[in-house]
Amino acid sequence: MAGRRVIGVDLGGTKLLAGVVDEEHEVHHRAFRLGRGGSAKEVVDHLIEVIDEVREAAGGDVEVVGLGIPALVDQQRGVAQASNHLPLVDVPVRDLVAERTGLPVVVDNDGNMAMLAEWWWGSARGATDAVLLTLGTGIGGGLLVNGQLVRGAVGAAAELGHIVIDADGPPCPGACPGRGCLEAFVSGTALGREGLRVAHDAPDSALGRALSAGTGITGALVTELAHDGDPPSRALIEEMGRSLGVGLTSLVNLFDPEVIVIGGGAIAAGDFLLDPAREVVARRALPVPRSRVRIVAARFGAESGMLGSAAAALAALADA
Amino acid sequence: MAGRRVIGVDLGGTKLLAGVVDEEHEVHHRAFRLGRGGSAKEVVDHLIEVIDEVREAAGGDVEVVGLGIPALVDQQRGVAQASNHLPLVDVPVRDLVAERTGLPVVVDNDGNMAMLAEWWWGSARGATDAVLLTLGTGIGGGLLVNGQLVRGAVGAAAELGHIVIDADGPPCPGACPGRGCLEAFVSGTALGREGLRVAHDAPDSALGRALSAGTGITGALVTELAHDGDPPSRALIEEMGRSLGVGLTSLVNLFDPEVIVIGGGAIAAGDFLLDPAREVVARRALPVPRSRVRIVAARFGAESGMLGSAAAALAALADA
Repeated sequence: MAGRRVIGVDLGGTKLLAGVVDEEHEVHHRAFRLGRGGSAKEVVDHLIEVIDEVREAAGGDVEVVGLGIPALVDQQRGVAQASNHLPLVDVPVRDLVAERTGLPVVVDNDGNMAMLAEWWWGSARGATDAVLLTLGTGIGGGLLVNGQLVRGAVGAAAELGHIVIDADGPPCPGACPGRGCLEAFVSGTALGREGLRVAHDAPDSALGRALSAGTGITGALVTELAHDGDPPSRALIEEMGRSLGVGLTSLVNLFDPEVIVIGGGAIAAGDFLLDPAREVVARRALPVPRSRVRIVAARFGAESGMLGSAAAALAALADA
Repeated sequence: MAGRRVIGVDLGGTKLLAGVVDEEHEVHHRAFRLGRGGSAKEVVDHLIEVIDEVREAAGGDVEVVGLGIPALVDQQRGVAQASNHLPLVDVPVRDLVAERTGLPVVVDNDGNMAMLAEWWWGSARGATDAVLLTLGTGIGGGLLVNGQLVRGAVGAAAELGHIVIDADGPPCPGACPGRGCLEAFVSGTALGREGLRVAHDAPDSALGRALSAGTGITGALVTELAHDGDPPSRALIEEMGRSLGVGLTSLVNLFDPEVIVIGGGAIAAGDFLLDPAREVVARRALPVPRSRVRIVAARFGAESGMLGSAAAALAALADA
């Protein structure tokens, strides 16, 4: 069996990452794309491009494709039913990709895929009750309860970014009709938006100078500046960490999880983000569940989704 | 088998209800107490009193006692670990009650018990994914995911009243260290508190006149006046219903449940409470999960907890 390989793909709201992964969880080839498709056809075209690229790099030697997509997924039929961030409404992603690649395809929500990687191989290994949030363009979520992934009645469960933390808060971005959802305050997008605000308000700050120099103000830039010691950038991340902590307080009280895993691009901020979140949970969550829960970074950082898609593909290979 | 009987007990934050229940879910005798114990011993004494009362009324012919208590319960050991509303810290309730009654005892969280009754016999019958909230002194919660009750890593899960709906909201009542929890806005206690505020602010209102006449302003009184057509009382219940709807929005997005069941004393308000909640969910929840979820009153109203405790006792009888 050693040496069998699959492709894992993580389709984000604005990014696409694919990798060839073996049974020892080694990633052999990676392909990365920025940007998003403007139609379902373009999204699928982008998927085929990165799959072809890593497949060719691997010498063609791959057996299954795993796809994690930021959408409500009917996993049995392989259909993306709806998405807050991509034009995917009732799109039979599994069959479309299988047809064009000639490979078996498994598809699931990106948060579920990230949870698989962290549960089987990473920071939630051995847990029966765990929560995972990926902080990227939006928030992806994975939920493990009684040792099972939670999918909900129509496969729409675990939208962890859409718990309300401020009843009268600002409209939620994307296609969510809500207000004051966690995702309105906590994501790479939210961090970039706040960074841009600071850049405008304080032209002499590092963010302000970056803006003058024509650098795009993104969550990644704010994170980089925070690591360089820039106080306003650190303050923005701390503020986001406190909002994250409010959302995690609800999740601790709801699920009494052993571990909460934070991944996605924004986890590049590491403990600058997690320490304020931990502090809020320690102060506000119910004593019994908070006494045990660990709040940790994803072992696979921003690659949990891609690796989890590969994990699902390997599981399909083992079942076949 | 027909005719075998058990006792179901629902211990609330300020009330205690016991009933003798048969295998056809018929309630034969009821006992009710107001008030709460000031110590663990007093709580257990009150339990024994109501159990003895209904047992005697039934002619002694009962086989098991089921206890639902508003606490984090280690169900395997029958121990109340902590409670937001009662002085129960590491109290071996099961063994204490078994010793004094000479009967087998099963114990679980009151929200879990209420969910059992509604799941097996009531408004959530046949569901695999369901949420139950009982609105009384505080909020009790039961959570059914993938056809299983959610207990969490240390048995502390499903504290549905302690999801945050307002990050900067008022301190949560009881022993919860949080702020802006759903329970701070939605409960019989909260309704009574708001009713008292109106009574003071508007002495000529029905609530104001009740206060002048020396009537205690409780959630039950506000509900009664609302049913009588009193506009300020209806407005208070509608406002509480909208807050409930914000919390339910989070729960719909998290669990994608088939049904949300609302019980506890406050469900006496019926659609005065549920319609505003439904309206908020219809407006703010994610389209796919909200398209299917039903928000309904508990079939057994304020008796779900007692009947669920009886259901657990009957299940123990069947297993024995």
